[in-house]
Amino acid sequence: MKVGNQEYQTIWMDQEAKKVCFIDQTLLPFNFEIKSTDCSTDLITAIQTMQVRGAPVIGICGALALVLALKNNTSTDHIIDMAQKIIQARPTAVNLAWAVNRVQESVLSQAEHKREQFAWDYVSELMEDDIRNNYQIGINGNTLIPPGKEKPFNILTHCNAGWLATVDHGTALSPIFQAHKEGKNIHIWVDETRPRNQGLLTAWELQQYDIPHTLIVDNAGGALMMNDQVDLVIVGADRISINGHVCNKVGTYLKALAARAHQIPFYVAAPLSTIDQNFKEDVNFAIEDRDSKEVTRLYGLSDEGSLVHVNYPQVKVANPAFDITPKELISGIITEKGIFKPNELKAIYE
Amino acid sequence: MKVGNQEYQTIWMDQEAKKVCFIDQTLLPFNFEIKSTDCSTDLITAIQTMQVRGAPVIGICGALALVLALKNNTSTDHIIDMAQKIIQARPTAVNLAWAVNRVQESVLSQAEHKREQFAWDYVSELMEDDIRNNYQIGINGNTLIPPGKEKPFNILTHCNAGWLATVDHGTALSPIFQAHKEGKNIHIWVDETRPRNQGLLTAWELQQYDIPHTLIVDNAGGALMMNDQVDLVIVGADRISINGHVCNKVGTYLKALAARAHQIPFYVAAPLSTIDQNFKEDVNFAIEDRDSKEVTRLYGLSDEGSLVHVNYPQVKVANPAFDITPKELISGIITEKGIFKPNELKAIYE
Repeated sequence: MKVGNQEYQTIWMDQEAKKVCFIDQTLLPFNFEIKSTDCSTDLITAIQTMQVRGAPVIGICGALALVLALKNNTSTDHIIDMAQKIIQARPTAVNLAWAVNRVQESVLSQAEHKREQFAWDYVSELMEDDIRNNYQIGINGNTLIPPGKEKPFNILTHCNAGWLATVDHGTALSPIFQAHKEGKNIHIWVDETRPRNQGLLTAWELQQYDIPHTLIVDNAGGALMMNDQVDLVIVGADRISINGHVCNKVGTYLKALAARAHQIPFYVAAPLSTIDQNFKEDVNFAIEDRDSKEVTRLYGLSDEGSLVHVNYPQVKVANPAFDITPKELISGIITEKGIFKPNELKAIYE
Repeated sequence: MKVGNQEYQTIWMDQEAKKVCFIDQTLLPFNFEIKSTDCSTDLITAIQTMQVRGAPVIGICGALALVLALKNNTSTDHIIDMAQKIIQARPTAVNLAWAVNRVQESVLSQAEHKREQFAWDYVSELMEDDIRNNYQIGINGNTLIPPGKEKPFNILTHCNAGWLATVDHGTALSPIFQAHKEGKNIHIWVDETRPRNQGLLTAWELQQYDIPHTLIVDNAGGALMMNDQVDLVIVGADRISINGHVCNKVGTYLKALAARAHQIPFYVAAPLSTIDQNFKEDVNFAIEDRDSKEVTRLYGLSDEGSLVHVNYPQVKVANPAFDITPKELISGIITEKGIFKPNELKAIYE
């Protein structure tokens, strides 16, 4: 997608140099910086520190970490060991385990001397799939947005499920980009999304396309909904149970409750790879409790324009990273194969 | 209440010097600083800039501004003019209009040469009433908190409705101080409360008394409630309609919805002066849309410990300051006269 006048993906291969390049998202929207590495450990760190973030692209980044790990050692033991290490980087992201396990399985089916080149080709295809799937999520989700009219159609989104959270196009924002491309009259309410303020990433993406948007604190959504200022909610997902429950960035659940109270449609946009087929319990995700510094250390620009931080005073903090939105609150799940009701997911796999 | 080993009120009179002293809350919890002034305009500015904040103490501060305004001019026209100016400082706070109108009416009933001294005495009584009422709110609200047991009783609160929001004792925190004094085993979840982060004030108040507490982002409450980690919610109020609807800091409504979804009792603590008897419509408060800089300019400490700020990049912001929690979501309203169901408020005035 566009950054200024240039086209970028969030992450890409430089096969000739056997390197992986990615946009460092911890610096956005303050600084736009590309990192490149030939070392799988750097990509594991990138996942842990959220230089690369967003469920779908975490999967791709993990797959690429496994590719880089094959550079000097293509033995079965090494591959299994590295795959485990990579999956542990972010326990909640089912896409990570999904992608890494797929690469591991396919690579192990090859003779040792073929494994490295095979892995590059295989993950290249995964990346193409991600791009195609997200684009299709945009086409499918766009059907929920009415054609242009005088009053703008107001869509609220939480966190960043834009192209930065995928290889390209995004999930929750993909229908928004598509609607804008078709000239529909839309306005986006962007949740700030404490503690890591990913709303600033969403605002930054929308700015590149001049899509009208307004940043709000996470507390404001209920008041806006009560005041008839929200027509539709679209969020992404980190993990979707086969039963239709959705694990996403903490705070999603509060917006789903408010949307229900005001009969506002609440949609989740995610590729089918986000669905955890093994997960059949009701509420049993391994929720990360992340570093308290995410809450107490705030980044921004000084009045002179340099990237700086400030700290809260000493205080005990709890920082659950995700919450679960029960299927009862979800109008539908927008996937590359169409829009499904939560209880229709099981049938996809039958 | 205690700051370190000293006792303070949020605001107090120095009658001899004809001055008003107050704690500058824009600097807390980073710096503890007392301001004093003999000029009513300074107190209006203190209300507008939130050096003095919290519905009950805004009322007192407005009353004191009117007292100071009588220094050189006790004419009826001047008093009416100044009272109007003061009330406009924060349109949502019903206590402000309530207190200023009471002072105006009483002062105008006096002969001109008696008005100034009368005003000092009258507001002194209002302040004593505030202290007594809030203390009684603590006694009444404490009945909702079970006596000490092995597992701590978890109370979630939003914004700061502690002693800093009143002359003394607080509203939502008053029952918590009382329960702690009686040795009950409690733990407080403190909402950060973006955009102005008043949760830091609440944490600071609780720290002075070693009351166990944990700061969370505003997004986290739903996940905690789903996970059975919240036993009771208590918040303050900026305005309560005679019908029982509650206008409070933005984000209150989202917590009320979540509390209802998990059958967690949701209480509002406020003196009867917060009730707007003239307000009978359902949803018709004058909600302030405050400065976008409250969202995009963040205060904290540098690594070296000095108070500094950082800025978000240029972005369009909406900043509704309050929301409305419908009476259906409110278990009860804790007042100085007892705990009432929302639909019992009307009977108090009959």
